[in-house]
Amino acid sequence: MPEKRYLFTPGPTPVPPDVLAASAQPIVHHRGPDFRTTYGRCLERLRRVYRTDSDVLLFTSSGTGALESVIENLCVPGDRVLAVTNGNFGERWAEIARLHGCEVQRLDYEWGATPSVDDLTARLEETGGAKVVLITHSETSTGVVADVQALGTAAKAAGALVAVDAVSSLGAVPLELDAWDLDAVVSGSQKALMAPPGLAFVGVSAAAMEAASQLPARGFYFDWRRTKAGQDALDAPVTPSVSLVTALDVALGLLLEEGLEAAFERHVRLGRACRAGAKAMGLELFSPDEDRSAVVTALRVPDGVDAAALLLDLRDRMGVQLIGGQRDLKGKIVRIGHIGYFDVFDITTALAALELGLAEAGAEIERGVAVTAALEAFEHTKV
Amino acid sequence: MPEKRYLFTPGPTPVPPDVLAASAQPIVHHRGPDFRTTYGRCLERLRRVYRTDSDVLLFTSSGTGALESVIENLCVPGDRVLAVTNGNFGERWAEIARLHGCEVQRLDYEWGATPSVDDLTARLEETGGAKVVLITHSETSTGVVADVQALGTAAKAAGALVAVDAVSSLGAVPLELDAWDLDAVVSGSQKALMAPPGLAFVGVSAAAMEAASQLPARGFYFDWRRTKAGQDALDAPVTPSVSLVTALDVALGLLLEEGLEAAFERHVRLGRACRAGAKAMGLELFSPDEDRSAVVTALRVPDGVDAAALLLDLRDRMGVQLIGGQRDLKGKIVRIGHIGYFDVFDITTALAALELGLAEAGAEIERGVAVTAALEAFEHTKV
Repeated sequence: MPEKRYLFTPGPTPVPPDVLAASAQPIVHHRGPDFRTTYGRCLERLRRVYRTDSDVLLFTSSGTGALESVIENLCVPGDRVLAVTNGNFGERWAEIARLHGCEVQRLDYEWGATPSVDDLTARLEETGGAKVVLITHSETSTGVVADVQALGTAAKAAGALVAVDAVSSLGAVPLELDAWDLDAVVSGSQKALMAPPGLAFVGVSAAAMEAASQLPARGFYFDWRRTKAGQDALDAPVTPSVSLVTALDVALGLLLEEGLEAAFERHVRLGRACRAGAKAMGLELFSPDEDRSAVVTALRVPDGVDAAALLLDLRDRMGVQLIGGQRDLKGKIVRIGHIGYFDVFDITTALAALELGLAEAGAEIERGVAVTAALEAFEHTKV
Repeated sequence: MPEKRYLFTPGPTPVPPDVLAASAQPIVHHRGPDFRTTYGRCLERLRRVYRTDSDVLLFTSSGTGALESVIENLCVPGDRVLAVTNGNFGERWAEIARLHGCEVQRLDYEWGATPSVDDLTARLEETGGAKVVLITHSETSTGVVADVQALGTAAKAAGALVAVDAVSSLGAVPLELDAWDLDAVVSGSQKALMAPPGLAFVGVSAAAMEAASQLPARGFYFDWRRTKAGQDALDAPVTPSVSLVTALDVALGLLLEEGLEAAFERHVRLGRACRAGAKAMGLELFSPDEDRSAVVTALRVPDGVDAAALLLDLRDRMGVQLIGGQRDLKGKIVRIGHIGYFDVFDITTALAALELGLAEAGAEIERGVAVTAALEAFEHTKV
């Protein structure tokens, strides 16, 4: 195995050294003053990243747990939800709703397609509306980023609550819980927020919290009211992952110090650089060639190249971890994540490794151009 | 604030330096070879600690999440469960079962009492049996450790599945999933297993897994079958907390290197030392004066002493974090945890701080004897 490792996957993502160091601090008690200070500051920083004055509820879980909390707290069996699906994570949310006994209506797209507002409006009319519309902001499985603001407005116009999976977008792509009138926005620690995996969040509008409080509690661990009551008192209802919260607090401090707008601009430029480099090499983009989709670049594998073997070669010989497609896209695409703690040299390293791997696999690609094309796109584009 | 901090609470507990260092390793992808190796080894080590050949399912959550998984996977609304409660955590499990629509029968004890086999047998006869009996092994709120083997045998004789909350006992007190014929044993990373909080487990017997597979899945994140399928393939169904699993793997390695029997013996001697020191000082024990209850020592606060002020004084002036009572025991007891990464000098430090704090609070205690009594009890007792 090579000595140096490069993590270029769309989650988990690389974590800055200061954040890793914070995660290794000696454990403190979660009801003591040290942790309560950290906890309160971390929750406040989350609210700034979500751009909300409402609550951002924090759970020790993966993002999937927080997705499940949305269903558990907003729906009872029989409630109709409309799931907008265009990839693996939209499918997962729909499946969670089904398991909880919801009537799941769907607006299905091919994987890789971008959902449209007109389709959503039409589908909501057909189905007679829905209590909650489930939208995936950044579909990590394909690199597509949806226009959540417009989709959310259409869903609200039909009287639905708007729930958004922003696990791989929050902190990388503009998202505003309050200004866009979103109701439940899920994210996780291990993507653009630059912390280790293990924490998940849901930003909850006042309307969504009110809707939840009209229902009987149906669970304990992911119960919103219990969690809000604990957070309001800085007294977590269950033992939180003290180390991960401490790490996340440092990571959010770094993000807010850079500034959200600067971070969004950096991600746009990283996305342009990655796409420019890939295209210069002669590769076909699978994810859209647009600034909004600036967090994951999905590329079609050239004909005749075994994608699995290519990824193993990059990983085991070069120490460069990219990732392939999920489900039907397995073997057809490779994905380069550039979410969070990334600069342009991560992009050029990913492209250089890909160039080398593809050339050695016998693909007909243009050599010697990708890195420079990426550098130029990064430097010479204004957002 | 004092510079050095001493964490003497029954969870989270102190974490060894090697475990903290492991938690700060750069993030690797959860489907890559590095993590899969760690993940597989960690799961195998968990099975050794549980003393089982069955599955130990691992979740990113607090212990409460894994308690909820037991209800979610073994019960459907209307199923009867019998909750044996003698403290805060037994109450919590009963509440979780109620939220999930179970018919909750109870065998209630005063907080601080030890459940009896005869009572359980009689109660199961009265109620016409139960699908699942919920037992708390170590009731962290009071320091009582129940005889789970005997209680479990009685529950099995009545045809029930036996579910055990072993969050603060596993690794400190003998527990054998297979030999004692237990069905679902819950634990967490942050107690005797010497890792940061954020991971929880449930060891599941073949009978319990079979019972779960007879029911429709009712959730996603805590679903046992989905989790087992992922673990069997070393391909976690959701992104696990890579850092915490890496840390836990190191911590379990330390525990197994010491040896489980040696760890149990150490905990018995630590418990004897703590009780001997407290009694020498003239304090009254709240938790039982018996070897089985060797993980938390609960002490009655002398009349006239303000327990909250005492705990704040220890914490803020001396850097020594003990913890008070929960619910009705608030203000009446203080608890010293000695679970996991503890040696006798942690006990003497806790006792010395308590002696100093009580003396300054005006309590009539015997000075100058507690530390030596603890040292002697630790050294001169054979298990």
